[in-house]
Amino acid sequence: MSILAVGSIAFDSIATPAGRVENALGGSATYFSLSASYFTDVRVVAVVGEDFTAEHENILRKRKIDTRGIGGQYMENLNEAKTDFTELNVFEKFQPRIPKEYLDSKVLFLGNIHPSLQAAVRLEMDGIALTGGDTMNFWIQGSRQELGETLKLVNILLINDGEAKMLAGGEKNLLRAANKVLAMGPQALVIKHGEYGATIFFREGAFGIGSHPFRAPALPIDEVKDPTGAGDSFAGGFMGYIASQGEVNREVIKRALFYGGVMGSYAVEKFGTERLQSLTREEIDARFEIFRELTHLD
Amino acid sequence: MSILAVGSIAFDSIATPAGRVENALGGSATYFSLSASYFTDVRVVAVVGEDFTAEHENILRKRKIDTRGIGGQYMENLNEAKTDFTELNVFEKFQPRIPKEYLDSKVLFLGNIHPSLQAAVRLEMDGIALTGGDTMNFWIQGSRQELGETLKLVNILLINDGEAKMLAGGEKNLLRAANKVLAMGPQALVIKHGEYGATIFFREGAFGIGSHPFRAPALPIDEVKDPTGAGDSFAGGFMGYIASQGEVNREVIKRALFYGGVMGSYAVEKFGTERLQSLTREEIDARFEIFRELTHLD
Repeated sequence: MSILAVGSIAFDSIATPAGRVENALGGSATYFSLSASYFTDVRVVAVVGEDFTAEHENILRKRKIDTRGIGGQYMENLNEAKTDFTELNVFEKFQPRIPKEYLDSKVLFLGNIHPSLQAAVRLEMDGIALTGGDTMNFWIQGSRQELGETLKLVNILLINDGEAKMLAGGEKNLLRAANKVLAMGPQALVIKHGEYGATIFFREGAFGIGSHPFRAPALPIDEVKDPTGAGDSFAGGFMGYIASQGEVNREVIKRALFYGGVMGSYAVEKFGTERLQSLTREEIDARFEIFRELTHLD
Repeated sequence: MSILAVGSIAFDSIATPAGRVENALGGSATYFSLSASYFTDVRVVAVVGEDFTAEHENILRKRKIDTRGIGGQYMENLNEAKTDFTELNVFEKFQPRIPKEYLDSKVLFLGNIHPSLQAAVRLEMDGIALTGGDTMNFWIQGSRQELGETLKLVNILLINDGEAKMLAGGEKNLLRAANKVLAMGPQALVIKHGEYGATIFFREGAFGIGSHPFRAPALPIDEVKDPTGAGDSFAGGFMGYIASQGEVNREVIKRALFYGGVMGSYAVEKFGTERLQSLTREEIDARFEIFRELTHLD
């Protein structure tokens, strides 16, 4: 089942203790799409400027990602806390253009862009069976009402610990924070814990699979070169695997959570999208097994 | 196989958002012993003052803990960062008194007291096959050399993320920090991640079980009433289960890590040692199964 990804495409200048790169292709739609492309067909909708060249497009095309929905205006990277948010006005004017070839998509991922844009895309798509979504502190603080509307359209929300607690009004207990977020609309909530893995919480009866949470570990790795895009890569593995299975059940969700962790762990091993461009499914499944062993009781 | 626990017995005054208690029986030896008593016979060595009454001793005796090694001088609680460390001199003078009935112990746990005292106890015991140990920031910063000597006597060290990174000289990467700590002596290192569970790292070939780490989750719980003693309770479940099995292999270690998490999660549900006094093995095994399900892929 193919997946439609909406989000940002941007150029990141990254400096970490391990080094630096300038103007690397980044943005939530880029990381998500590259990651998900190892599991299923991916279509992208994103707005870009003239800086986005054929060379950049080729990075996505080499992974057989459908790029017909990329176009329009230049967009600054919104994933970074350091973003100059005066640039956000670009979104107010931007109407996502969804190619008609995309309209039969069944699985949708709403990457981290303005919640009203996320909602607009979802509402334009009639045949969607499952919507995943992301958000961040900036929208939680600044666009609370719009985010509230969008959350009602999202089946599975993927955010990190800090975002979950903030979205739950400062609730410090993770389980209680999760329950408050689930009451806002999503049937399931994936909370990402960075190097400690991720936990999925369910609304009672969601997807017909009960309400017990499930937790997948992350691999303790030797060197984190660059954490940029880890969350979007996690989401790409998680949603990509679900889309590839064509149905949502407890076992699929559990494996998806492991694949999310695998893709996040690969993403941080090199700068920018470098590692995500050159993976093989064999490498992915080998790490899946390592993750499984890491926490498996006979 | 019985286990000998050495550590502090103290009286804690605890205040958390959920309430407060005054002069509750606490200390590393108390939490460890109560927790381990659900798995195997426990013997305690600790120094106490006149404040330690028959009523306190009965809390331990009800769990069939051998208290003949409790006596001597009053000792302030050293587990709290707020401890007045001028009191630490009591340790310099204190020579642990180990009843001769304890001398056939095979498994030893060195709770969080001065590293020189930990070493002294270990060196007095000839028949020990496995030594677990704990430490904390105060000793890492202030008694580095003594701690270094003690680490050579410890087979399995149990500390938290912050302590591991500090002990490794400020190394921020968890895997590299673990490898640096393992190079100091222990064959295995358990790093406790609080609500995210715990990971065990091995020296190459330790216990003949290879060097792949293993991670056990923790249960996301609704209300943490009082985190005091969670680490010692974890250690009690971990070491107690290993002692009950009489041998160390990969499967035993993995299950021990889960039992550690189970006991830690029970400890925080009520104030002080209250929950640890009233558990049943059935409740413990039921939560073990929940933890297993939490992260188990079919």
